[in-house]
Amino acid sequence: MNNPVLVEVTRGALVESRHRGAVAVVDSEGTAVLTVGDVDEPVFPRSAVKAIQALPLVASGAADAYGLTDAELALACASHSGEPAHVEAAAAMLAKAGRGEGTLECGCHWPLDQKVARALAESGAKPGALHNNCSGKHAGFVCLACASDVDPAGYVRPEHAVMETVRAALEEVTGATHTQDHRGIDGCSIPTYAIPLPALAYGFAKFGSGLHLSEAYSAAAARIRKAVAANPFMVAGTGRFDTRVMECLGPRVFLKTGAEGVYCASFPELGLGVALKCDDGATRASEAMMAAIIRRFLDLDDKERCLVDAVADATLKNWEGVEVGAVRAVGPLSA
Amino acid sequence: MNNPVLVEVTRGALVESRHRGAVAVVDSEGTAVLTVGDVDEPVFPRSAVKAIQALPLVASGAADAYGLTDAELALACASHSGEPAHVEAAAAMLAKAGRGEGTLECGCHWPLDQKVARALAESGAKPGALHNNCSGKHAGFVCLACASDVDPAGYVRPEHAVMETVRAALEEVTGATHTQDHRGIDGCSIPTYAIPLPALAYGFAKFGSGLHLSEAYSAAAARIRKAVAANPFMVAGTGRFDTRVMECLGPRVFLKTGAEGVYCASFPELGLGVALKCDDGATRASEAMMAAIIRRFLDLDDKERCLVDAVADATLKNWEGVEVGAVRAVGPLSA
Repeated sequence: MNNPVLVEVTRGALVESRHRGAVAVVDSEGTAVLTVGDVDEPVFPRSAVKAIQALPLVASGAADAYGLTDAELALACASHSGEPAHVEAAAAMLAKAGRGEGTLECGCHWPLDQKVARALAESGAKPGALHNNCSGKHAGFVCLACASDVDPAGYVRPEHAVMETVRAALEEVTGATHTQDHRGIDGCSIPTYAIPLPALAYGFAKFGSGLHLSEAYSAAAARIRKAVAANPFMVAGTGRFDTRVMECLGPRVFLKTGAEGVYCASFPELGLGVALKCDDGATRASEAMMAAIIRRFLDLDDKERCLVDAVADATLKNWEGVEVGAVRAVGPLSA
Repeated sequence: MNNPVLVEVTRGALVESRHRGAVAVVDSEGTAVLTVGDVDEPVFPRSAVKAIQALPLVASGAADAYGLTDAELALACASHSGEPAHVEAAAAMLAKAGRGEGTLECGCHWPLDQKVARALAESGAKPGALHNNCSGKHAGFVCLACASDVDPAGYVRPEHAVMETVRAALEEVTGATHTQDHRGIDGCSIPTYAIPLPALAYGFAKFGSGLHLSEAYSAAAARIRKAVAANPFMVAGTGRFDTRVMECLGPRVFLKTGAEGVYCASFPELGLGVALKCDDGATRASEAMMAAIIRRFLDLDDKERCLVDAVADATLKNWEGVEVGAVRAVGPLSA
């Protein structure tokens, strides 16, 4: 595997660091529209597929049974920053299923956003499972179990009914078989299955267009996209790239970051899906790559272009606010 | 530039992410002992050369004039975590020169260690320039200026007498000419000059052995190594790799991390210097690379080996403490 350099980090007149990666853009018929690097190697999609993992929550009727709001549906697709609104919505979802924080099996961590973590520390509180960036997704899993009269205990294990349903959804949408030899354990303890980027991109093309999905999943995908477009804050948080892009571009883009440099997106009006991975797992690079893909495929007005350029060709400042370099998409992803 | 993969991050049975890089190990005569990857490209050493930047502080007599302690000398070489002992020592250094926090030109940031940052937030305090991870180095620059009757104002600028002295020290020790076209601005606002890894490694071989240095710098290097070996906490902080290795191995290793995946080390008893860079700038990779180099060159007892192996071949656990993968040195750096 020898992927091209897609992002350079400069300091002064020199390149200081380099990020390699691969990108697949695929249409709703499964045809490759853009291929960069080696896209055949299976990639763990991590949190980038949360919206697909949330399809059964809606398609099963569980979301309606518990009267989940659009904000709560958006949170089910989130890697949130652990801000108060995120924590409250996750708690509300669990309460609707008659459960509490103790049912969550995602583990605890301090909010990923350092400002939020410091504010929590300043208040004298400690983080719980509700602060885990995946708590909305897990609350969705608990709702799915409870609405189906399945005991949620052990819902993170691959053989639990909820995880089998979620795996089947991923297989149906991406068309990739999720085999045990391609299985890892995610940060939040659920299984994650490595698949090639084109399958992932194809899944997000279908998620965005509704084409080639079962009627139930097509309707669920439309509802989830609408819920996220109306609540971009719930999917990430203050200042985060996913939130800012969807606040600015609205339903024209659905995008979702994942750990270790993965990013997925749907461009519904174009019928395209995107999946990319930075080889070394850096988020600064996967964000620059995704920003470069957005600016390449979408027709942007000045404000939208400014937002996206600021990430595809970001200025690096030091602690004193002095401009010292840049993080910029290059090579096949240059402007 | 097509450096080899030196660190793999695995999840389950698959490789999830890969880090490439280059390594130079050089002896005190300047002879290459190990060369991995393209070592000709100039690399910004960033904070990895703080100990060399501190030589003039000792060699000029400024450290003695102000009665700097060994702990304070160690702090002058530090990228510290902003723990109370670090902040107090930086303040004490400034006080000895008749100055205060306001003289520092490094900028403010929250302590890099998140536990320390949260503790500071919990106490209701805000970070100042003393919390900047470079405050000890900057306090050393201020001492150097004041002891030489030079106005410290603007000491971070390349044309200031202090920065000219520091640049001359780097040129003398590494043998590399520090030209303006290879100059960038560091995170703490001082200049940083890109030089090839072998020159950097040669500098650290000389720093460790004292050979081929002026008498004043040879004595200063010995004193700084002794100060750091006696105060490894002051160079980094609680739980940090630099601190743990030097606490465990004592004066047999001097090591110092730098931003963007740079690491330098001296192995004084072997007369060797090490300089390495992870292409993409990841610290998890530069630490695994340095751990692999330490285990390759040094004769380690069980306890030392255990500490180093835990970083060269680290277990990855998720938020629930479940083992999910590894970060491990591979290829030319495998065990």
